Amino acid sequence: MSANGFKAVSENFSHNVQQNPYGPNPADFLSNVSNFQLIESTLREGEQFANAFFDTETKIKIAKALDDFGVDYIELTSPVASEQSRKDCEAICKLGLKAKILTHIRCHMDDARVAVETGVDGVDVVIGTSQFLRQYSHGKDMNYIAQSAIEVIEFVKSKGIEIRFSSEDSFRSDLVDLLNIYRTVDKIGVNRVGIADTVGCANPRQVYELVRTLKSVVNCDIECHFHNDTGCAIANAYTALEGGARLIDVSVLGIGERNGITPLGGLMARMIAADRDYVLSKYKVHKIRDLENLIAEAVQVNIPFNNPITGFCAFTHKAGIHAKAILANPSTYEILSPSDFGLTRYIHFANRLTGWNAIKSRVDQLNLHLTDAQCKEVTEKIKKLGDVRQLNIDDVDSIIKEFHSDLTTPLVKPTSSGLPKVPHVLEGLDESEEKRSKLD
Amino acid sequence: MSANGFKAVSENFSHNVQQNPYGPNPADFLSNVSNFQLIESTLREGEQFANAFFDTETKIKIAKALDDFGVDYIELTSPVASEQSRKDCEAICKLGLKAKILTHIRCHMDDARVAVETGVDGVDVVIGTSQFLRQYSHGKDMNYIAQSAIEVIEFVKSKGIEIRFSSEDSFRSDLVDLLNIYRTVDKIGVNRVGIADTVGCANPRQVYELVRTLKSVVNCDIECHFHNDTGCAIANAYTALEGGARLIDVSVLGIGERNGITPLGGLMARMIAADRDYVLSKYKVHKIRDLENLIAEAVQVNIPFNNPITGFCAFTHKAGIHAKAILANPSTYEILSPSDFGLTRYIHFANRLTGWNAIKSRVDQLNLHLTDAQCKEVTEKIKKLGDVRQLNIDDVDSIIKEFHSDLTTPLVKPTSSGLPKVPHVLEGLDESEEKRSKLD
Repeated sequence: MSANGFKAVSENFSHNVQQNPYGPNPADFLSNVSNFQLIESTLREGEQFANAFFDTETKIKIAKALDDFGVDYIELTSPVASEQSRKDCEAICKLGLKAKILTHIRCHMDDARVAVETGVDGVDVVIGTSQFLRQYSHGKDMNYIAQSAIEVIEFVKSKGIEIRFSSEDSFRSDLVDLLNIYRTVDKIGVNRVGIADTVGCANPRQVYELVRTLKSVVNCDIECHFHNDTGCAIANAYTALEGGARLIDVSVLGIGERNGITPLGGLMARMIAADRDYVLSKYKVHKIRDLENLIAEAVQVNIPFNNPITGFCAFTHKAGIHAKAILANPSTYEILSPSDFGLTRYIHFANRLTGWNAIKSRVDQLNLHLTDAQCKEVTEKIKKLGDVRQLNIDDVDSIIKEFHSDLTTPLVKPTSSGLPKVPHVLEGLDESEEKRSKLD
Repeated sequence: MSANGFKAVSENFSHNVQQNPYGPNPADFLSNVSNFQLIESTLREGEQFANAFFDTETKIKIAKALDDFGVDYIELTSPVASEQSRKDCEAICKLGLKAKILTHIRCHMDDARVAVETGVDGVDVVIGTSQFLRQYSHGKDMNYIAQSAIEVIEFVKSKGIEIRFSSEDSFRSDLVDLLNIYRTVDKIGVNRVGIADTVGCANPRQVYELVRTLKSVVNCDIECHFHNDTGCAIANAYTALEGGARLIDVSVLGIGERNGITPLGGLMARMIAADRDYVLSKYKVHKIRDLENLIAEAVQVNIPFNNPITGFCAFTHKAGIHAKAILANPSTYEILSPSDFGLTRYIHFANRLTGWNAIKSRVDQLNLHLTDAQCKEVTEKIKKLGDVRQLNIDDVDSIIKEFHSDLTTPLVKPTSSGLPKVPHVLEGLDESEEKRSKLD
């Protein structure tokens, strides 16, 4: 066990649980950071994304890809949303996937009756509990909500399938109201209760407090759903697991209402930093890129340039001091290992921020031989050109080769055909000792 | 004061501080959520972004735009990175901006001597303190680090300008080593000490604990710098402020090494949800879009589709039950008000998830008159077509108009020129009572 708080990350990325810096927190026995499940909602929350229109074929392709990735649950749009939504729900239930299939409905018997006939493994029920939603959405009071909930829950349970009860806009709901209704539905025997940050207002410590309190009130599992309006959806999910929640709602690239929810890929990045062994034992994380490309194409968006893991520069190192240390040991500046995701790192050396260590390793790649002092000298030349304009790799290679040829054959310029063949970029360095010592 | 924990968000978005659900936390007297400052690092951390090459003219344009926005500090690339970097630093110092100008250097007298001659208002010094960096980067021990720090700090102070001392990779550094060096530099009289999550491994509760502990050890301000590899950079920044940090490093769109750091816009979203009055009193948040466009163009990236505030769908509401409540009161599903950012909300009604409330408000916009029952009927027709293919607004309008004309003049089709002029989309609803009651 290499995890010991402040020095939590082992060099080979093995089982590096992130703990509090000051040793075990008395509350951390509740943590499910190493025991969580995913409710994948690209086919429900994701359908609420502005650009989303999934035809049946696309839905089935997505469901199969999610199942292959290893998600625990797949959540589908309510079968009462439209006739095709109902048919698609039935079709996906018949695929025989390993993942359990859920559908997401309002807390109403009309919806529940349709849902249980689709063949789903479970039903996710939601109702607004905040003053806002009670006033401007359904207009019902807490007694009415409780009675509807009991009726729907007992009906779904009588069909022998799973049932989750969730409040909506939980972080703007009255705490006592919330705990009351959660305790009530827990006693009837729901499989899960859900907390939903429907508007994206929650912050991590608030999440931790609410989850921990709820954990002391109910016996069933706790599921959490976080919108990303203020950019905290991944952190809130992580903190919810620390507080004792067991299941997190995600969607591929986070697509959903407004700017969406906790993204699958981003949460995987977070969880791998906490417990790589657990994540890799359950989920095929090397398929994240394909999954994201599938969804990005279906909803016509680009992968964000700054996406965790798959953003084009997520494993690109540029500043000289970063490059130097990365070449010596990638763990110095990487909490995630690109090879886990079928990706490679890239040392960006063609710029004015470069350092001589990066240039020296490029010299080695070019099969040229320069002393450290000579590498420093040629680095200065590269920085000088980098001050004038954006550089590419050919620029750097030309400077290095010219410098080298000036040293070795000062009066005869080599022909370009006489230059050694070189790899295009300084990429794909692995962490093997052999290679590393070569680069040191 | 409308803030009362769980029901923290007032309807008119005024001063809605997010607190813990269970009343004041004993530690929250340390919170700087309503008293924070921004160190804007697009021209330092941002230069380390893979695509970044800022020429002098662009740097000056960016610096002026940041100053106009209201950032407290602007941090620039080290003047020893390249000759032009030094000249640009001097040029920006001479602009006479309201923001204080900083440059960021290694903890070394060679760098410090150059830095203090540029005309900056302060110097940010950094040195790696983790085992990784001590082994693979500079190779120095903690005694050496302390002695270098003392020499550099006393030298910079002797020039009468601000000095910050930061560790690097703080969350993988030994806690006792960290507290020791921070106490040492605090006693010499640094203006700030910095905590840096250089690899993006930190999580919010860990951040809170470290900041709070450090707060009990030093008297100076605490600055925090968070990378976003695991998607927690905004949440970590917020939690750091809760723990007593005062300054957060940001860059526009978060650009920086790898997938970057806490983004300026995303942090503004988070802070407005916590204390809108404070944020609006200090920063011109309606300029976020222009700032982001300026940087996106300079580094040749697209604004991420899911960006907080400025993502193309950040204020787009689609699901029927969402649209219904948003039309009644935008606060039901919005923690941020689009008008604060010079933006408008959009109700996406041309899809199979639509509800009759959204369609009814479209009918009203078209100046047609249908009863609720008729609106429900036409909604079913729209959902049916939405099951077959992706809809656009013209599709919906055609269905509504045809339905309406069938009702009113069943035997005579109206000519298209006879149709009322309609706004292109159902957007830009403001929160005025007048408009809202019209839409109810």
